[in-house]
Amino acid sequence: MIKTTISQVHKYVDQEVKIGAWIANKRSSGKIAFLQLRDGTGFIQGVLVKEEVPEELFQAAKSVTQESSVYVTGIVQKDERSPLGYELLVRGLEILHHSVDYPITPKEHGTEFLMDHRHLWLRSRRQHAVMKIRNELIRATYEFFNEQGFVKVDPPILTGSAPEGTTELFATKYFDEDAYLSQSGQLYMEAAAMALGKVFSFGPTFRAEKSKTRRHLIEFWMIEPEMAFVEFEESLEVQEQYVSYIVQSVLKNCQIELKTLGRDTSKLENIKAPFPRISYDDAIKLLHEKGFDDIQWGDDFGAPHETAIAESFDKPVFITKYPIGIKPFYMQPDAERDDVVLCADLIAPEGYGEIIGGSERIHDYDLMKQRIEEHHLPLENYQWYLDLCKYGAVPHSGFGLGLERTVAWVSGVEHVRETIPFPRLLNRLYP
Amino acid sequence: MIKTTISQVHKYVDQEVKIGAWIANKRSSGKIAFLQLRDGTGFIQGVLVKEEVPEELFQAAKSVTQESSVYVTGIVQKDERSPLGYELLVRGLEILHHSVDYPITPKEHGTEFLMDHRHLWLRSRRQHAVMKIRNELIRATYEFFNEQGFVKVDPPILTGSAPEGTTELFATKYFDEDAYLSQSGQLYMEAAAMALGKVFSFGPTFRAEKSKTRRHLIEFWMIEPEMAFVEFEESLEVQEQYVSYIVQSVLKNCQIELKTLGRDTSKLENIKAPFPRISYDDAIKLLHEKGFDDIQWGDDFGAPHETAIAESFDKPVFITKYPIGIKPFYMQPDAERDDVVLCADLIAPEGYGEIIGGSERIHDYDLMKQRIEEHHLPLENYQWYLDLCKYGAVPHSGFGLGLERTVAWVSGVEHVRETIPFPRLLNRLYP
Ligand SMILES: [Mg+2]
Ligand SMILES: [Mg+2]
Repeated sequence: MIKTTISQVHKYVDQEVKIGAWIANKRSSGKIAFLQLRDGTGFIQGVLVKEEVPEELFQAAKSVTQESSVYVTGIVQKDERSPLGYELLVRGLEILHHSVDYPITPKEHGTEFLMDHRHLWLRSRRQHAVMKIRNELIRATYEFFNEQGFVKVDPPILTGSAPEGTTELFATKYFDEDAYLSQSGQLYMEAAAMALGKVFSFGPTFRAEKSKTRRHLIEFWMIEPEMAFVEFEESLEVQEQYVSYIVQSVLKNCQIELKTLGRDTSKLENIKAPFPRISYDDAIKLLHEKGFDDIQWGDDFGAPHETAIAESFDKPVFITKYPIGIKPFYMQPDAERDDVVLCADLIAPEGYGEIIGGSERIHDYDLMKQRIEEHHLPLENYQWYLDLCKYGAVPHSGFGLGLERTVAWVSGVEHVRETIPFPRLLNRLYP
Repeated sequence: MIKTTISQVHKYVDQEVKIGAWIANKRSSGKIAFLQLRDGTGFIQGVLVKEEVPEELFQAAKSVTQESSVYVTGIVQKDERSPLGYELLVRGLEILHHSVDYPITPKEHGTEFLMDHRHLWLRSRRQHAVMKIRNELIRATYEFFNEQGFVKVDPPILTGSAPEGTTELFATKYFDEDAYLSQSGQLYMEAAAMALGKVFSFGPTFRAEKSKTRRHLIEFWMIEPEMAFVEFEESLEVQEQYVSYIVQSVLKNCQIELKTLGRDTSKLENIKAPFPRISYDDAIKLLHEKGFDDIQWGDDFGAPHETAIAESFDKPVFITKYPIGIKPFYMQPDAERDDVVLCADLIAPEGYGEIIGGSERIHDYDLMKQRIEEHHLPLENYQWYLDLCKYGAVPHSGFGLGLERTVAWVSGVEHVRETIPFPRLLNRLYP
């Protein structure tokens, strides 16, 4: 007997296979029973016609409960109507574990109930699809950066100083010292870029932010590439190529999952470099034309502004060259005018907001020192970082992409809480 | 002019190229100057013969300081003697930034000094090589698990309960609650395996352990695969295939780095599945034969014991079926005798110690509950975990591989502090 998984049944058409699986759902009449089977690799429908199978097998299929674990044997058949393209004519059903009163039934449940049962909710067709798309975005990220010669570098999570204040940081005792959980590995990645050229990190980051929006998580994953000898414009090209690559990878490898989620894939097919650029100046003008009178030059954008700007484009759009006053100290001022910096945020279409923030970094020692002082930051915390301007400084640029917002956009799910296996939200630390 | 990197010069033999680089080192006589150039992708020697180049270029090369950043142009030449196989006949040198008094000179420095300058130390040839090998182990890990159909799942770092006590945990306030930094995502990965079949995590873990050995880091990265419908023996096969795959990938793709480190690669060439297995019982006998009288059946192994056992094998060795009393509560007892569990530690050769710990997990509800109680663990913290035994339980197995110990072994470096970009040790939280 061939032991296989649902994702591999296409190799065994008209053959009998054995699959370890769970009963996701079932329905039956007097004459026919349908088992929705899942095994982690996918979902397949098992069919039993009463007249064609032994009576005890038909009764077993009719009485098996939701989320019972089974070894099922059956003959693989083509089935054009199913998302998978195949179904299973069930010939045997060995029940491994009989599940009683599984809490998540096919009826509707409230969000808090589902979040309390996240360890089980992940088994649902929709959550399964989102997690597979997340996985594909991760896989494609490694593939893209590895192929481009980037080196994966893991910046530390525990850091000894809280450079920009402790308000949104998680603090812990590190033996006798104070330590904080990292909000970004960027400064470390800059040091690494001077050693390894092009580097990227991909790890968890933490913001103790009291926001309760559909775009915020307390613990989220970020990709932070940093590139020596790369200036502002070239960095934008890397960003648009990267985002195109991962979106096209999902389109190529997650057709079933996108269908499960009802995602309009025509909107994703269009996501190919180059992406449009609009300056901050022009974005302000555009907002005024659209009737926004709550924003002036020098203000940062809120979510409604980002959404309104994004609506003018059918691809992600770079908003470039923000006012120096609303951006962090380390961004390189524009050589042509000193009131804006060489930065860009990438805004996703369809109201998903900012998915990337990036910039060219200052590499002049005096300017960097001056900017640290202007921001009233403690210079002693930045001694090692200033060393990068002291010893062989070079132009360099980097950016950070938020994984969960990207998963939300590509999957088309409304809230980031569904984009990470075990979300951490304000008042949500369980399970 | 072709702009390229050191890793790509083999494509441009006898052609003139331009490279952004740093001066790693230099030496010169009256007639010839040698620049050791590095750009993150590799190291190459630049050569200037006084009679062949303009006098100001020769003088520039003689006076350029260590770690100055430059754009260098030159003609690529084959050079059998260099590790790279190529050298550069320098034809131009544009100094971007003149470095003064770079702290890490070619002379010897103490460990603490180097650790205080870790942000610069990473630029050295040796540290560069270790980081590239780390990168290759990471890259090959994703490749292996993706090809085998595993889904990357990120378990949470912040957790609300401290299941096995708080002694070795970092604690933080999570708004009004207490939270702890994860030491292992295993229990979450088991939940994920029931949803996604075969899963793996790869992220940072934290142990507030007051150990100061060459094998311990406070913050380290771990790969934790978990597999539904996979029993003990099959899990060992996945482990030996995985370890073989990543070691052979390093051998294939990091020849220059292994040479830089002086690694005896013949010892790595031998690392191919299958790996030997020795039972805990036989390992105790072996130790007694070797003269160890400080260990009895029921004791856990210390580093000297692991090293002595490993010396009897020229591959990593699985020590299987440890006494139930020295292993965690969730391990499946052996069906044939209830005093040992279906677990294995994988011990690396050459004294590098345990790199993997793994086991089959209990999937029977009553047994799991009993084991939690026997370990005096608070049952209320395990309610969601017990749900996995309640709803469609299946046999499943998993393991955890410590990235830094594996980097140390494959690179042949003595201490794990060199295997992570910014190590966190007892009394070391900087830079
Ligand atoms: Mg913004
Ligand atoms: Mg051990």
